[in-house]
Amino acid sequence: MRGLNRAASVFVLLPVWLVVAAASADEGMWLFNDLPGEYLKSNYGFEPTEPWADHLMRASVRFNSGGSASFVSSTGLVLTNHHVGADTLQKVSTPEKDYYRNGFYAQQPADEIPAPDLELNQLVAVEDVTERVNAAVKPETSAAEAFAARRGVMAEIEKESLEKTGLRSDVVTLYGGARYHLYRYKKYTDVRLVWAPESAIAFFGGDADNFEYPRYCLDVCIFRVYEDDKPARIEHFLPVSARGVADGELVFVSGNPGRTQRILTTAALKFHRDHRMPYVLDFLRRREVLWQQFGLEGGEQERRARDDLHGVQNSRKAYTGMLQALQNPAFFARRQAEEDAFLAQVAADPAWKDSLDAWQRIQEVCARRRELLGQTGGLGGRLFRTARTLVLMAAEDQKPNAQRLREFRESARDSLLQRLFSTAPLYDDLEQTELADSLALFVERRGGDSPLVNAVLQGKSPSTRAAELVRQSKLADVVERKRLAAGGQQAIDDSSDPMIQLARLLEPEERRLRAIHDELDETERQAYARIADAIFAIRGTDTYPDATFTLRLAFGQVKGYVENGRKIPPWTTVGGAFAHEERHAGEPPWKLPPRWHEHRRRLDPKTPFDFVCTADIIGGNSGSPVVNRDGALVGVIFDGNIQSLAADFFYSDEVARAVSVDSAVILEALRKVYGADKLADELGH
Amino acid sequence: MRGLNRAASVFVLLPVWLVVAAASADEGMWLFNDLPGEYLKSNYGFEPTEPWADHLMRASVRFNSGGSASFVSSTGLVLTNHHVGADTLQKVSTPEKDYYRNGFYAQQPADEIPAPDLELNQLVAVEDVTERVNAAVKPETSAAEAFAARRGVMAEIEKESLEKTGLRSDVVTLYGGARYHLYRYKKYTDVRLVWAPESAIAFFGGDADNFEYPRYCLDVCIFRVYEDDKPARIEHFLPVSARGVADGELVFVSGNPGRTQRILTTAALKFHRDHRMPYVLDFLRRREVLWQQFGLEGGEQERRARDDLHGVQNSRKAYTGMLQALQNPAFFARRQAEEDAFLAQVAADPAWKDSLDAWQRIQEVCARRRELLGQTGGLGGRLFRTARTLVLMAAEDQKPNAQRLREFRESARDSLLQRLFSTAPLYDDLEQTELADSLALFVERRGGDSPLVNAVLQGKSPSTRAAELVRQSKLADVVERKRLAAGGQQAIDDSSDPMIQLARLLEPEERRLRAIHDELDETERQAYARIADAIFAIRGTDTYPDATFTLRLAFGQVKGYVENGRKIPPWTTVGGAFAHEERHAGEPPWKLPPRWHEHRRRLDPKTPFDFVCTADIIGGNSGSPVVNRDGALVGVIFDGNIQSLAADFFYSDEVARAVSVDSAVILEALRKVYGADKLADELGH
Repeated sequence: MRGLNRAASVFVLLPVWLVVAAASADEGMWLFNDLPGEYLKSNYGFEPTEPWADHLMRASVRFNSGGSASFVSSTGLVLTNHHVGADTLQKVSTPEKDYYRNGFYAQQPADEIPAPDLELNQLVAVEDVTERVNAAVKPETSAAEAFAARRGVMAEIEKESLEKTGLRSDVVTLYGGARYHLYRYKKYTDVRLVWAPESAIAFFGGDADNFEYPRYCLDVCIFRVYEDDKPARIEHFLPVSARGVADGELVFVSGNPGRTQRILTTAALKFHRDHRMPYVLDFLRRREVLWQQFGLEGGEQERRARDDLHGVQNSRKAYTGMLQALQNPAFFARRQAEEDAFLAQVAADPAWKDSLDAWQRIQEVCARRRELLGQTGGLGGRLFRTARTLVLMAAEDQKPNAQRLREFRESARDSLLQRLFSTAPLYDDLEQTELADSLALFVERRGGDSPLVNAVLQGKSPSTRAAELVRQSKLADVVERKRLAAGGQQAIDDSSDPMIQLARLLEPEERRLRAIHDELDETERQAYARIADAIFAIRGTDTYPDATFTLRLAFGQVKGYVENGRKIPPWTTVGGAFAHEERHAGEPPWKLPPRWHEHRRRLDPKTPFDFVCTADIIGGNSGSPVVNRDGALVGVIFDGNIQSLAADFFYSDEVARAVSVDSAVILEALRKVYGADKLADELGH
Repeated sequence: MRGLNRAASVFVLLPVWLVVAAASADEGMWLFNDLPGEYLKSNYGFEPTEPWADHLMRASVRFNSGGSASFVSSTGLVLTNHHVGADTLQKVSTPEKDYYRNGFYAQQPADEIPAPDLELNQLVAVEDVTERVNAAVKPETSAAEAFAARRGVMAEIEKESLEKTGLRSDVVTLYGGARYHLYRYKKYTDVRLVWAPESAIAFFGGDADNFEYPRYCLDVCIFRVYEDDKPARIEHFLPVSARGVADGELVFVSGNPGRTQRILTTAALKFHRDHRMPYVLDFLRRREVLWQQFGLEGGEQERRARDDLHGVQNSRKAYTGMLQALQNPAFFARRQAEEDAFLAQVAADPAWKDSLDAWQRIQEVCARRRELLGQTGGLGGRLFRTARTLVLMAAEDQKPNAQRLREFRESARDSLLQRLFSTAPLYDDLEQTELADSLALFVERRGGDSPLVNAVLQGKSPSTRAAELVRQSKLADVVERKRLAAGGQQAIDDSSDPMIQLARLLEPEERRLRAIHDELDETERQAYARIADAIFAIRGTDTYPDATFTLRLAFGQVKGYVENGRKIPPWTTVGGAFAHEERHAGEPPWKLPPRWHEHRRRLDPKTPFDFVCTADIIGGNSGSPVVNRDGALVGVIFDGNIQSLAADFFYSDEVARAVSVDSAVILEALRKVYGADKLADELGH
């Protein structure tokens, strides 16, 4: 699951739900302020104390780009997945110094490489603001008015909090709109690369082994956060266990699952099964082939496109697994029976009339969404996206904070500007390829006779037009971006940059579609909130909300499973990695880095490598620390097995498993393969 | 253009058109009985005599599987592309003896390997049967009745011809239905593999270089046809030139272009641009990713899937190029202007009212076709297709010959049975993968709630159901197929084979859709025939019909071109192939086979390798002999450059080029790399 992080970034704008059925077994992505203490106590004899939970919460780190991590030293060290850091590794690499492929180790702090646009978040406080949010929305208003009112009060709460505390402040919609919590984060934006292994061991087995198990991936890398140009002093960090895990051991996962959709009605699930997922998969396969073709042009092209390629391959594999789960008639029959039974309970009491109607409203929203599939006012490529942000920002900044599109609200400004002014390299050929493909897709979706298409193409073919736009735009230059951002609407109006002009041309269509989607989201949110009301009333509140790319605690046992009659062990070993290489005759992607062969004799072959557990995770959990009862880090989540892909829709611990890098192999590799004793010594101190 | 042959097989069932505009420059895929003698004489001072043309026609060979070739010795040798032979190379290979990858050479006739299911056709006579076909269709009948009447008379003509001559007899629809010709072929079904090079040199540069130029591909292989278990005596064969071609030299291409659509109205072109081609591309990318993933499972899986993978990659690249041509607004503006001008001429004379209406009818057909996109009663995999053929055949055989679906008419029976009883290996894992994917696609397209989908899945997921079907079916056994075919309807009714039962379940839906498409085809055919009438009347008959996978003569000059300011030479050399390998550091797919390095010093680096010419070719022309004025074979067509992909819709000689293997490198390689002096000596004798 390279890109447990990516799944998050793809979905972060989607509405979020809550879970219909009561949690069972080790199910659940629990709020830190509402942990399943009783279940843990009665089933595992463990009671999470408030200090235990608070420490774990503060030692947990969110990569704002999509992903999870943890503090692992008082000196600001942050441990995450290699594939979460890949975006940065890619951005700081050059044709000559390919840190993504060859790895990196800063012997001295001075050698650590600043990431061009990372933002790390540490959750420090959560406050329930449900009443204030709901009070702002008058009953009997239209969905559009309700949406505006809600957006307004959320922006207001966030701005007040930011001004009062100086902390990043986000109001999060939970249980599909039944609860609103204010999350406050300490933000780190000076983040530097300390160590990364070679991609060949981080992603051993490549796309072929992705989502498979047994695995042998050292999918980790280490950053350090700085404040005032010095390593940040971190109070809450995790000790790193050298002993590995025991079979059946209770472990906890603290991370930021991006999205689950377990509350979805069967009508909504059918929309996903028959329309949305096939649509998304067509797009993912299109991009997969595009980046593969681009990479065929040469080694440097392959380097430039690989992060994008791995991202879409990962998503394609994940979506394929999810769609397979939905296409199983047995799943739907079970789900339909559950829903029918619950609907009968709801229908029995006239007080729940509004909740009952919610199912119908959701069905209507799905029908509308189906019509809208493929309609977008946007194009691809970083240059275009930069232009679009600049154009929208100029207009939004003229509005009061509470009326702006969410991403332009004042409390989110710093994060927005950091991304907008990123110094990450831009490659003309990559830009042109993505833009040309997105222009071609735009023609396909709207038809070549559409006036908007013709205005966009200006009589040229998609590839000719893309080449011209990329060649003539000056937005690759950060100075120009800053000038345009500072100049506001006047600068945008005066700009002769063709990419800016293209973004302005598309702006009305984009806003039109955005308004439709925002209204549909609101209608859906209100409907699911009514369904949640019924669930709370009929089944109780002892449950967890669907994932929202905010901090959650999952738990489970280290536990193997049986697949097609074959026993799959709970963990793999270093010796197994070499055997896995031999089974594939050392052909890439099963070729261990030369360093591993050089130092093979020093390595203890019995060192645990990767392990599986039953904790409930999903995209966004990548890099999450796995801790034991004592709060020591015993692993780092990096994947789920193929059977776990249905977790978007339902949890199962029969054969679905979360996959982690064992902490023991991290220490073993640092000391014996990478000559990084100093770094290993620093971990946990 | 690996799979110039494939394009043909994909399209062979589509209706075919004719060319609106008069031919210009070296444009045209001319009928052998209607060659552009005057143009050739006035522009090239060359007049094709009847003996010259008749000899070339009889020396030309069609691979019924989709592709072209030529006789090159009196002893039955047939020269074609490696990628045309690839299907057979794949079928006769095993994990231990991989002739596709490692090449093959039969030192003795006894070593030659029989192809399991090849049929080669030699065109020996053409007869105009337009009057008889038209006489059978009464005026003022419905499209469905006209279709039935036409199908009936065509089957009758073919059967009569077969009985009279013993030759394969096909009535071919030309000029979109304005002409019908009866083609008679001598058929060869005992075809044996004589020689093939390694895939690494046949497909040097792989998917990356496909449709690119300059190229260095020895994309050829040699078969031999047998009669009565002895090498067939061939009267008409081509001498093989050892001298290569000259810059600017006039050359001829004799082959079987599969399909062009140059007559399409702008409305039809828009349907292709906005609907059909994006739809086909989604499917091709889906299959490309599917076979890539399958190949990742291991070396043997890669071997099993590679022919399918190369086929879809080739089609994907071809379609992408075609769609790019259609998405160019400049192309449409020009085309629309031409059509408007022609329509004005047609509208000026009330006598052409029916022709004028034809444009409207075509637009209506396109709208209907759009609704039908994705609707199919069929599934994937050879086992399912076998079951479907058996089920349909049992029912069709009970009807009079003239009323059967075209593929079950008596004159086509031998060819049908040869394919049906093919002994080519079937791989359970490959079958299961393709069937599971096609079941998943069936769910996507019809929705998981469709009763037909539920009847097909029987409560199981697509992959579980596919696994069960493949495991339980006995159709992999040729004996069982023969038993069912011989047993007729009773055997089908009694069969408990789940694949047969599945095909029977889907039969009504398939027949329903087939009837709709047949009627749309007929409506379209009649409309284009009316347009053709107008063209003949207004612009004259000095033109050629759109391609129909029947023998045509194209011609042009050996000629380089200029691309992005860079001069592209007319031919490459053996020395250039080694330089091309070095430029890519010998990384696959730019790694020449070891044999080429072993014998490098013996090779003349100046030997021409591949060359380009302006002849008008398209998918199906793969393997076509390129001959000079003297009728000597100077090359073998194997590709078109990327700019030539628009040839489906229009011809241009500005930068579009056909790419051939030079005859000189074939002889050079046979003698100096493959130690096949004996075979080289046999060529042309």
